[in-house]
Amino acid sequence: MDVKMRIENLRRLMKENKMDAYIIPTADPHLSEYIADHFKNRKWISGFTGSAGTAVITQEAAGLWTDGRYYIQAEKELENSGIRLFRAADLGVPSYTEWLLTVLKEGSCVGFDGSVFAANSVKKMESEFKTKDITLKMDQDLCGRLWQDRPALPAQPIFIHDVKYAGKSRVEKLNQIRAEMKIKGANYYLLTTLDDIAWLLNIRGDDIPNNPVTIANVAVTLDKCYLFIEDSKVSKAVKAELMADKIIFKDYRETAQFLQEIEDSDSIMLDPDMTNASLYNAINPKASKIECPNPTQLLKAVKNKTELENLRNCEIVDGVVMVKFLKWLKSTVGKQRVTELSVGEKLEKLRRQNELCVGLSFDTIAGYKDHAAMMHFKATPENTYTLKNEGLLLVDSGGQYYNGTTDITRTIVLGQLTPEEKRDYTLVLKSHITLATAKFLYGTTGPVLDGLARQPIWKYGLDYKCGTGHGVGFFLNVHEGPQRLTQRPSNSIALEEGMLMTNEPGIYTEGKHGIRTENMMAVVKDEETEYGQFMKFETITYCPIDLAGVDETLLTESELKWLNEYNRMVYTKLSPYLSAEEKEWLVREINL
Amino acid sequence: MDVKMRIENLRRLMKENKMDAYIIPTADPHLSEYIADHFKNRKWISGFTGSAGTAVITQEAAGLWTDGRYYIQAEKELENSGIRLFRAADLGVPSYTEWLLTVLKEGSCVGFDGSVFAANSVKKMESEFKTKDITLKMDQDLCGRLWQDRPALPAQPIFIHDVKYAGKSRVEKLNQIRAEMKIKGANYYLLTTLDDIAWLLNIRGDDIPNNPVTIANVAVTLDKCYLFIEDSKVSKAVKAELMADKIIFKDYRETAQFLQEIEDSDSIMLDPDMTNASLYNAINPKASKIECPNPTQLLKAVKNKTELENLRNCEIVDGVVMVKFLKWLKSTVGKQRVTELSVGEKLEKLRRQNELCVGLSFDTIAGYKDHAAMMHFKATPENTYTLKNEGLLLVDSGGQYYNGTTDITRTIVLGQLTPEEKRDYTLVLKSHITLATAKFLYGTTGPVLDGLARQPIWKYGLDYKCGTGHGVGFFLNVHEGPQRLTQRPSNSIALEEGMLMTNEPGIYTEGKHGIRTENMMAVVKDEETEYGQFMKFETITYCPIDLAGVDETLLTESELKWLNEYNRMVYTKLSPYLSAEEKEWLVREINL
Repeated sequence: MDVKMRIENLRRLMKENKMDAYIIPTADPHLSEYIADHFKNRKWISGFTGSAGTAVITQEAAGLWTDGRYYIQAEKELENSGIRLFRAADLGVPSYTEWLLTVLKEGSCVGFDGSVFAANSVKKMESEFKTKDITLKMDQDLCGRLWQDRPALPAQPIFIHDVKYAGKSRVEKLNQIRAEMKIKGANYYLLTTLDDIAWLLNIRGDDIPNNPVTIANVAVTLDKCYLFIEDSKVSKAVKAELMADKIIFKDYRETAQFLQEIEDSDSIMLDPDMTNASLYNAINPKASKIECPNPTQLLKAVKNKTELENLRNCEIVDGVVMVKFLKWLKSTVGKQRVTELSVGEKLEKLRRQNELCVGLSFDTIAGYKDHAAMMHFKATPENTYTLKNEGLLLVDSGGQYYNGTTDITRTIVLGQLTPEEKRDYTLVLKSHITLATAKFLYGTTGPVLDGLARQPIWKYGLDYKCGTGHGVGFFLNVHEGPQRLTQRPSNSIALEEGMLMTNEPGIYTEGKHGIRTENMMAVVKDEETEYGQFMKFETITYCPIDLAGVDETLLTESELKWLNEYNRMVYTKLSPYLSAEEKEWLVREINL
Repeated sequence: MDVKMRIENLRRLMKENKMDAYIIPTADPHLSEYIADHFKNRKWISGFTGSAGTAVITQEAAGLWTDGRYYIQAEKELENSGIRLFRAADLGVPSYTEWLLTVLKEGSCVGFDGSVFAANSVKKMESEFKTKDITLKMDQDLCGRLWQDRPALPAQPIFIHDVKYAGKSRVEKLNQIRAEMKIKGANYYLLTTLDDIAWLLNIRGDDIPNNPVTIANVAVTLDKCYLFIEDSKVSKAVKAELMADKIIFKDYRETAQFLQEIEDSDSIMLDPDMTNASLYNAINPKASKIECPNPTQLLKAVKNKTELENLRNCEIVDGVVMVKFLKWLKSTVGKQRVTELSVGEKLEKLRRQNELCVGLSFDTIAGYKDHAAMMHFKATPENTYTLKNEGLLLVDSGGQYYNGTTDITRTIVLGQLTPEEKRDYTLVLKSHITLATAKFLYGTTGPVLDGLARQPIWKYGLDYKCGTGHGVGFFLNVHEGPQRLTQRPSNSIALEEGMLMTNEPGIYTEGKHGIRTENMMAVVKDEETEYGQFMKFETITYCPIDLAGVDETLLTESELKWLNEYNRMVYTKLSPYLSAEEKEWLVREINL
């Protein structure tokens, strides 16, 4: 059944249910960024395979909203689907609610599945639609009803994340949460975000590819902690360990009923931006809701000393993987057949050889030449290029290890470059170094550091249509908030000591090339002076930056110094774990 | 009567009126930044002479909140007053409402004069105070009642600002406003901000020192425009010209009654952030209020081509003044007695020699050595230093001309500098150049550009506790919104083509020195590429930057190039208006 047919069937069902529009976001009931196949309604209805986007269907039209990473890919995948692409990050492009307000008549009805929308998103929609008396119907998953071969809900076993990695016991973490509850006057705390649940209880799972989380909900009281989870996922041993810490097990499907049954006198703390509307509406309406930013998210974002120590070790292991990979790549391309696909396979094999590696932190992006202009390109047997001794290969990859999550991009010089490729490679590196060496007053927010990193690229009239960096989980999701580096003025989270941040400026030229150089960094303290506490970044990704792409005339003396010192630090960190041959290769590679 | 006595008298009056706290801001009924002497209640009660600050008095305590420009000055002036200084810009310092919430009991009453508070500020206070059941009493000006020798309300004559300078007639401007009223569905528009009124009607006055505005209110309808103004200020000729454009004159004191008498069916557009609470509350409560950012402010901020052409000419005249001044200063110090005070007098005399000069745009700040560490230092006969052939003199000054308003700071090298002075002078220059040469995507906001400018200074663990730049009026107030360069995340106004912005980073080291280099810039378009419209700045202040303070080893090649090109441009612009001797001096000064 093709996309056009699916949309026609959905339109029929919309008519039956008296809905004039239907919204299908990329979301699950936990508002996860990456979702299990079971929840991929939006992909199913639209055919667009990117990881972010919202489809909106009316009787006359269909639209898909996605961000800058996916413009090129979405344009290709939506061809002949009848679905119009809305470049959501561009100035002047209407949001889907703005668009609906222009195409729908007064008094229309907009439908969606309330369990995959944040409570606050629904409130916002309600107020936006008020001007045209548009009503919402959120009790039905129409796509789910049409989708016949829909995958089942995942149910992988959970396991304990040892405190020797996590650095803090679940009892300690629960007590930190309870202290927050007391300050806010709450006797319940509802937590539904999967990475936060995994962090809080020191458990991991495998319900979402590359994200070691388990589908569950949590309700914390001042002396108990309820874990709503499918019983089949919990072994006896795991259950015993959690019950020893007073975790009470409940069935996953009982969450809504539990919330209905709290007392009128109870006060439940929750984050309406991170709790789905169906669960939010299930709460006993007479109980008080204390709405605030989810406190677990900030606690989790600030890594403790044990986590950081583990992560530095993890990054050495990951760096050794990268050096082995780069050496193999550079000596094999042009001699044996290497494709974008086989690059991903090779990297995964190298990572998985490590005892502490559990899997990948995201699907490897290996884009050669113009493929790399698609920021999140995914090679398939049909589209994969064979690599030659020329041009640039962008490889963005990462691993999940018990002692950390990694995320690294290198753009690798396979041979002759055009002057434009070399210029862009160097400009991206300048941006990367600008951010890596930034020193900033405590309290400085994301847009300031993001804008700083963009300067060298803006000087040439270029830009990248995504953020400069994101937080990273610890053996958890590769994208983690609340901190991030983007231009959005609303992004006003101060960078705290112990937060992780990627540093990944890029240049993406459609039809030509894509360049990104990405390291992970930890936020650390710099000096405190009479003017305040200064902060800086410690780069904790250890992998050489390819000098063959650098146009030295574009770098300042101090930028060149940083580059050489960085590559030397990589050698110092990794050489104890490299063979003589690998060391020799690395010495040559970085002009040591 | 000293400050302690005044506060005791106020406390007595507070008791009589059953107020537990009384707030005295620096404000007038038009929410002007600079205010006529008549309104200087806060200075009268506290003895603090700075241009910004709020005093709060309770029975037990007294506090003064002011910003980073005034920390050093306020500390000195509040000594022995019993008033505690709150450094409002610092992290962790409570706002005065937060402070009142900690010191006042449940159910207390806070008093203030509602005519000097924005309607929205009062709403915000109401909601903040709700948690402690604190009520507000805003119908009395207690300080005004105590202040016996209070100056009268100013009443200087108004005059027409010719359209050959303004570039747009008042009819055109009123029609732009009416177009906005139609979009918003309003049939009244209330405008009470003095610079906006002066701009809208192409009139000027002299009611506030250095700000060529007149105290008045305006109500625009779709076919009329009411000007509420003291009749004695308007000559027959001016009245005739305004009446020819259908301006209807009303007495200033009739504004509130006029607002009470609008029809229930009327809709009045106003900006609750820029309209005082007393006038806001006077509006017929059955009429609709359409609350939005004041549209005149944005129209005024984007200078038209005529204004910009005039301003460039004005800046040449002002630059010639500065060159004559600098030449005089450098050849006189050490030979004749020159003080901080006489520097200001000399500059004013030079400016006023120009036909189009009306006066100064603010009180000249001339600070020698450690005096300059006080950002807004004002020399008096008691404190003035005599200048010697050593150290740094900071001079921040500007003129009001029919064809523009200027604002310029130079830090002048009078002789031998310490290594620290030279380093700081050069770092400030690096910051200045960083901003002057910035290229940024349309939509970039103030915090990003402000943070960019701070980088060179942050690198050395230094900072300046004020914004990097502000908008400037056209023959109007030297500080003008809505655009500004500060770190406040709420500052999300995009820089539009035609906006003016000062570029004034600085370093202020208490007890040692203060350095600032300030030019005015216009926002102009750079290239448009596939990534969007890029913007940049055109520096429009023409005055040499003193090379004697520069440590060339701290500047990059491109920074040095900018500096030399800037000084050369100054020579090209000014030399036609300089004497042979002045030209010769300038050539030597800039190493041409």
